[in-house]
Amino acid sequence: MSVYNFSAGPACLPKPVLERAQAEFCNFQNSGSGIIELSHRGKFFSPVIERAEANIRELMNISDDYAVCFIQGGASMQFAMTAMNLLNGGTADFVDTGVWAAKAAKEAKLFGTANIAASSKETKYDHIPAQSEWNLTPGAAYLHITSNNTIAGTQYQQLPKAPAGVPLIADMSSDIMSRVFDVNDFGLIYAGAQKNLGPSGVAVVIIRKDLAERTADTVPTMLRYSTYIENGSMFNTPPTFGIYILALVTDYFKEMGGIAAIEKINNAKAAKLYSFLDSSDFFASPVAVEDRSRMNVVFRTPSDELDAKFVKEATAAGLTDLKGHRLVGGCRASIYNAMPPEGVDALIDFMKEFARVNG
Amino acid sequence: MSVYNFSAGPACLPKPVLERAQAEFCNFQNSGSGIIELSHRGKFFSPVIERAEANIRELMNISDDYAVCFIQGGASMQFAMTAMNLLNGGTADFVDTGVWAAKAAKEAKLFGTANIAASSKETKYDHIPAQSEWNLTPGAAYLHITSNNTIAGTQYQQLPKAPAGVPLIADMSSDIMSRVFDVNDFGLIYAGAQKNLGPSGVAVVIIRKDLAERTADTVPTMLRYSTYIENGSMFNTPPTFGIYILALVTDYFKEMGGIAAIEKINNAKAAKLYSFLDSSDFFASPVAVEDRSRMNVVFRTPSDELDAKFVKEATAAGLTDLKGHRLVGGCRASIYNAMPPEGVDALIDFMKEFARVNG
Repeated sequence: MSVYNFSAGPACLPKPVLERAQAEFCNFQNSGSGIIELSHRGKFFSPVIERAEANIRELMNISDDYAVCFIQGGASMQFAMTAMNLLNGGTADFVDTGVWAAKAAKEAKLFGTANIAASSKETKYDHIPAQSEWNLTPGAAYLHITSNNTIAGTQYQQLPKAPAGVPLIADMSSDIMSRVFDVNDFGLIYAGAQKNLGPSGVAVVIIRKDLAERTADTVPTMLRYSTYIENGSMFNTPPTFGIYILALVTDYFKEMGGIAAIEKINNAKAAKLYSFLDSSDFFASPVAVEDRSRMNVVFRTPSDELDAKFVKEATAAGLTDLKGHRLVGGCRASIYNAMPPEGVDALIDFMKEFARVNG
Repeated sequence: MSVYNFSAGPACLPKPVLERAQAEFCNFQNSGSGIIELSHRGKFFSPVIERAEANIRELMNISDDYAVCFIQGGASMQFAMTAMNLLNGGTADFVDTGVWAAKAAKEAKLFGTANIAASSKETKYDHIPAQSEWNLTPGAAYLHITSNNTIAGTQYQQLPKAPAGVPLIADMSSDIMSRVFDVNDFGLIYAGAQKNLGPSGVAVVIIRKDLAERTADTVPTMLRYSTYIENGSMFNTPPTFGIYILALVTDYFKEMGGIAAIEKINNAKAAKLYSFLDSSDFFASPVAVEDRSRMNVVFRTPSDELDAKFVKEATAAGLTDLKGHRLVGGCRASIYNAMPPEGVDALIDFMKEFARVNG
């Protein structure tokens, strides 16, 4: 039975990536050792981290004004690091579109003022507040957004722009490299790799280099962006195996034709699934139509009991990890870059049959 | 040709661990997915992280007074985290036995006073200062040591004890689980996994639980030990693949008969290599005999040119990563738990032949 893994993260990797990593797991490039055993400063790993960075730069069209860093601790560490490095007692604006956005604001409060410029918390984060209604702080240290909300299933369809002179910071953990956009609109982008890019344990941080000069001297070495920029993310031993997988995944994205080609596939996958949801009398989406995520499709059956039955029977049919996040319940299909269209087709077929039997 | 990898870290893993990870890389326990793709909160990964912790507790005989945490950022992040959590503007004592010990003291200065109680820096860290000569601070917040010095090739033969009431903190990155000792003598032990335990990207932190209560409210969530203790290291997505390898490596340590059995093998490996060095007119060890590391054996040929030639020809013969750290030069053989005795035998045979031809 072929299995399609709809986990929100860690999530499925492209099959060719998995198979290649397996094939060379014990003997990387005839070195006699696995890449997981090799020195980060040796001749085998250096080209790997360089390729990972070069691939990301090429795929996202990143200029030399920006550094690409690999940092441990996931997006949750970035909630603190962004503020430690860039807030300096000032005020930053946060658009509260979900649990992760709120956590970012919470950590920032330790280093300055976190102004909630807008929030959809009262309606259970079922939409993205319209930019026209954001209460922005003049001269804010930065504006922070979460481009895709994994739990609530919402996503900025158009990424916003910050006022002139205000760096835009985005947590893109769950939709980085899923669509084309202009990196130059951002001061800093961060993303835990374990959704669209690779395994857990490494976050990609894309930062406009001049911003790293704002860090106060009181920030520890490992929490300063400048440490990663100046040392090519190798001040200390980086998470080598994760970076290796990142290199393979981005190789694969290039083979797929780059982000524009991937975006087309992603749009088609999401459109098919939402179209089915909208046509169904049995399943429903709780998310505002105009803000629906193309990465995390949240849906419900008519009852909690049927939600549970659906998840259980889907798992038995090889469609795994469809349970919604415990904070919102229901079901969720995460369909990141690595989810093939066939997985979405199989899910829809299963949903049709489940609705027929249980409807 | 069989290859023996003498890298100081990331370092060789036990062969059965590598082979098992390879075999199940794409399909973990018939889930249809690799462990690297599976949710950290799902039914497949939960037993893995539980087993990693249970193995560490069993192998090191750790009581319930201590928590075992898995934290990203390596030992370098622990240099800052120990001080952020436990210094609180006070004074801590540091024994400066090498580059890494000095880095730990440097980060602590951001959060209080770092008193260098003793240092062997003036003699290029060729020995461990005798405990009788340490200038300890009465009522220090803690005493920090580096149990094994990867670069200089020194190691505490007997681990010291701190004065009553002073928590002893040890960076054991390069010798954790290489020998038997009493965890109860320590307040906190930390170790990057990539030398003796597994891959880079995860550090093991063993902390007496009451110490985690000292953390000030101003410390960010991801940098508080209490966050890891209260959430079983799963406040956010942990580095799942690294923890999985840790579980396999510690399974293997148990199969070997536990730490006492491993220590015997380690002692025999090191004794054989040092015995050869001492008998050689060609090779020499620059380290004080009484402080020689059983993990990182530093040695030299009669000249820099011959050092380079040795490293190059050894690599060609399948004995890799023998170059000394750039700060001290020469050669270094890292012989952690996963290095089989046959690797040390092969190295000695090669050294004998190299000395014969070039001596």
